[in-house]
Amino acid sequence: MQNVRGLSCTNCGKSYSPEPDRYLCSECGDSGLLEVEYNYEIIRRNWDKKKLVDNPDSSHWRYLPLLPVEPGTIRPPLRVGGTPVYQNRVLGSELGLTEIWIKDDGLNPTGSLKDRASSLAVVKAKEAGKKIVACSSTGNAASSLAGNAAASGLKAVIFVPKRAPSGKVAQLMIFGALVISVQGSYSEAYDLSASSIKRWNWYNRNAAINPYLMEGKKTAVLELAEQLDWKMPDWIVLTVGDGCTIAGAGKALQDLQELGFIANKPRLLGVQAEGCAPITRAWKQKEPLQVCAEGSLADSIAVGNPRNWKKAIRAIKATEGAMVNVPDEEILEMMRVLGRKSGIFGEPAGVAGLAGIKRAVRKGIIGKRQKVAVIITGNGLKDIDSARKAAGEPYQLPPDLSRMEEVVSKEELREQ
Amino acid sequence: MQNVRGLSCTNCGKSYSPEPDRYLCSECGDSGLLEVEYNYEIIRRNWDKKKLVDNPDSSHWRYLPLLPVEPGTIRPPLRVGGTPVYQNRVLGSELGLTEIWIKDDGLNPTGSLKDRASSLAVVKAKEAGKKIVACSSTGNAASSLAGNAAASGLKAVIFVPKRAPSGKVAQLMIFGALVISVQGSYSEAYDLSASSIKRWNWYNRNAAINPYLMEGKKTAVLELAEQLDWKMPDWIVLTVGDGCTIAGAGKALQDLQELGFIANKPRLLGVQAEGCAPITRAWKQKEPLQVCAEGSLADSIAVGNPRNWKKAIRAIKATEGAMVNVPDEEILEMMRVLGRKSGIFGEPAGVAGLAGIKRAVRKGIIGKRQKVAVIITGNGLKDIDSARKAAGEPYQLPPDLSRMEEVVSKEELREQ
Repeated sequence: MQNVRGLSCTNCGKSYSPEPDRYLCSECGDSGLLEVEYNYEIIRRNWDKKKLVDNPDSSHWRYLPLLPVEPGTIRPPLRVGGTPVYQNRVLGSELGLTEIWIKDDGLNPTGSLKDRASSLAVVKAKEAGKKIVACSSTGNAASSLAGNAAASGLKAVIFVPKRAPSGKVAQLMIFGALVISVQGSYSEAYDLSASSIKRWNWYNRNAAINPYLMEGKKTAVLELAEQLDWKMPDWIVLTVGDGCTIAGAGKALQDLQELGFIANKPRLLGVQAEGCAPITRAWKQKEPLQVCAEGSLADSIAVGNPRNWKKAIRAIKATEGAMVNVPDEEILEMMRVLGRKSGIFGEPAGVAGLAGIKRAVRKGIIGKRQKVAVIITGNGLKDIDSARKAAGEPYQLPPDLSRMEEVVSKEELREQ
Repeated sequence: MQNVRGLSCTNCGKSYSPEPDRYLCSECGDSGLLEVEYNYEIIRRNWDKKKLVDNPDSSHWRYLPLLPVEPGTIRPPLRVGGTPVYQNRVLGSELGLTEIWIKDDGLNPTGSLKDRASSLAVVKAKEAGKKIVACSSTGNAASSLAGNAAASGLKAVIFVPKRAPSGKVAQLMIFGALVISVQGSYSEAYDLSASSIKRWNWYNRNAAINPYLMEGKKTAVLELAEQLDWKMPDWIVLTVGDGCTIAGAGKALQDLQELGFIANKPRLLGVQAEGCAPITRAWKQKEPLQVCAEGSLADSIAVGNPRNWKKAIRAIKATEGAMVNVPDEEILEMMRVLGRKSGIFGEPAGVAGLAGIKRAVRKGIIGKRQKVAVIITGNGLKDIDSARKAAGEPYQLPPDLSRMEEVVSKEELREQ
């Protein structure tokens, strides 16, 4: 791993060699999150845009020189990454802009951006010689871990709280994960996972402490940059839950600048749900994070006690970015607007970014003529219940053509 | 459309010029399905494998010379096609083979192979000058039409029977389709759609009669061939409902042979659900089709009155192929096997082909050393209820590490 210099503590700065199962600073403990440091000089010497053009691999492994992976590790076979980017004028004008770029990361193998992180976790588990990888989650982290572990012949152990919807549990079990339904709250499920991981020495896929996951997530922005032919937008918009994804976006921008791949550096707009916005609060008040309730239907970003909040705020500040909150009604509205104007079906946390754009334009944070890209982080098929809330009701008619007449008149369905 | 010679009636052979809204032979009526005839000489002259290599478009529009589309028509922007193919030894041995190739078409924009057909429908609707395109369906045809129409600024009108699950209806409405819930049976919904389409002159996206849809579906096999570097497997396996998809596969093989792109022609294995297998019956008995009940949980292929059965049987015969039926239990088992061995989550109709392979190997139809490719036609997220049936139950535990001990022992979850 010549491209990696080591891991450094984001709290005290202490350096560590990049062992695959090194999670936290041994001095700072829980508050000592680590971060991967690259040797950009070596990367620059061996890699350039031309090599990317010549690389037929459309998955996110095409950015291997910017990933903390031993060259020899066998990587999970699922095609993670390579998701499409669409330019859309109609949707742009709906948000108060002239156009917008949308990256649909819901088309990853298990349906979310989290596949980028979980595929990294599986690689690092292999490097650590582990056969079992575990996490506590009911959402995209869990399903992406289960899928990528299955594809790689590893066993996934996943702890879910009692309230986890049976559909999400079913997906995990289809992938052969061992699922432990903990008869208690989410934090009890998390605690049991943490003590089990420690007790049985499994690999820990937990974005709260694993420093490698952010590196996987950053590939969404590396990919976006290449797809836009390195002409970066003025803003990149991402929803924020734990903070790890937007921190990854910041890391990608740093990488791209260090390598001289991009000339301008976009600003990051972080969007949280109004019902659960502890990072926005900490950013705005310039105060330490206060744990809060998780009151939003956008469950993938409703994180009351985000562990990566410092990394997130640092990334936003480094780009002179901003944060906004959006209410659930606007998130549901954006599910409809995105679907109608683009044919993309996003889950609530996946589309909240669009609601954030609309708000940021209204507030003057984003200028009307600025170029904005947003990443839809998860597939709407993952949360049909919310879609049902957003969708409204169909017409109910007897099988009778004369009754159709009324609908056709009302909806103006006559061909011109 | 220099590449297209015209349309010909599969019943009487009569030729028609390829108008975008020409659906049936005017002499044979309902039994006169039409088929697109290409001018292979012109295609050969202007197109070759080298041109494909140089084409950066990863969507199915890269096969435009083999599609019945006017060069100038604006195509829907969604990236249809370009789905991954995986080689898998573990899954192969599970089915009695040494290895297998799996194409995951559930990663299309709205989650199924049907996007390939619906994107063609939208193009042909535009060529016909229509603003409204309609169909009757509760499943993948409907959602793919709704999504592709939304992305193209067309209005979709979709007729669903009363029993359509509200989750599937929600997806259609998120895409802005006008949904008519017909208070009656599926055939009453179909009849109301047919009379409405006629009455208001909408574009008809109905695989039962629209000759262009099969041309879209065939791109799954064109793509597979290119991804396997034109070295075709001995068998291509597809599930069969209406018959249109496997007929499309046959058309693709014909195209590839005519152009000299492939040396060997694979055989087609068509797989139906035991509870609804009218085409297998007609194929086996060499008798006309008998309409039957729709008794399978694999709803996307449970078609009791398939309109494209003749085209399907013709394609299977032309490749010296075969058909098998599989029971629902084996389909559910294959959802688990596929998930566990590959990290792919397929819907029941999408994975039935795997159950068919296992059966065909057992029966000696497919040789153990033969090379087999299967297309997973739809994403498992579309049918969480079936996944729930297939998945089994998680462990239920109190938040207590000592209780985890028992699970770890029983499941052999100790790292070596």
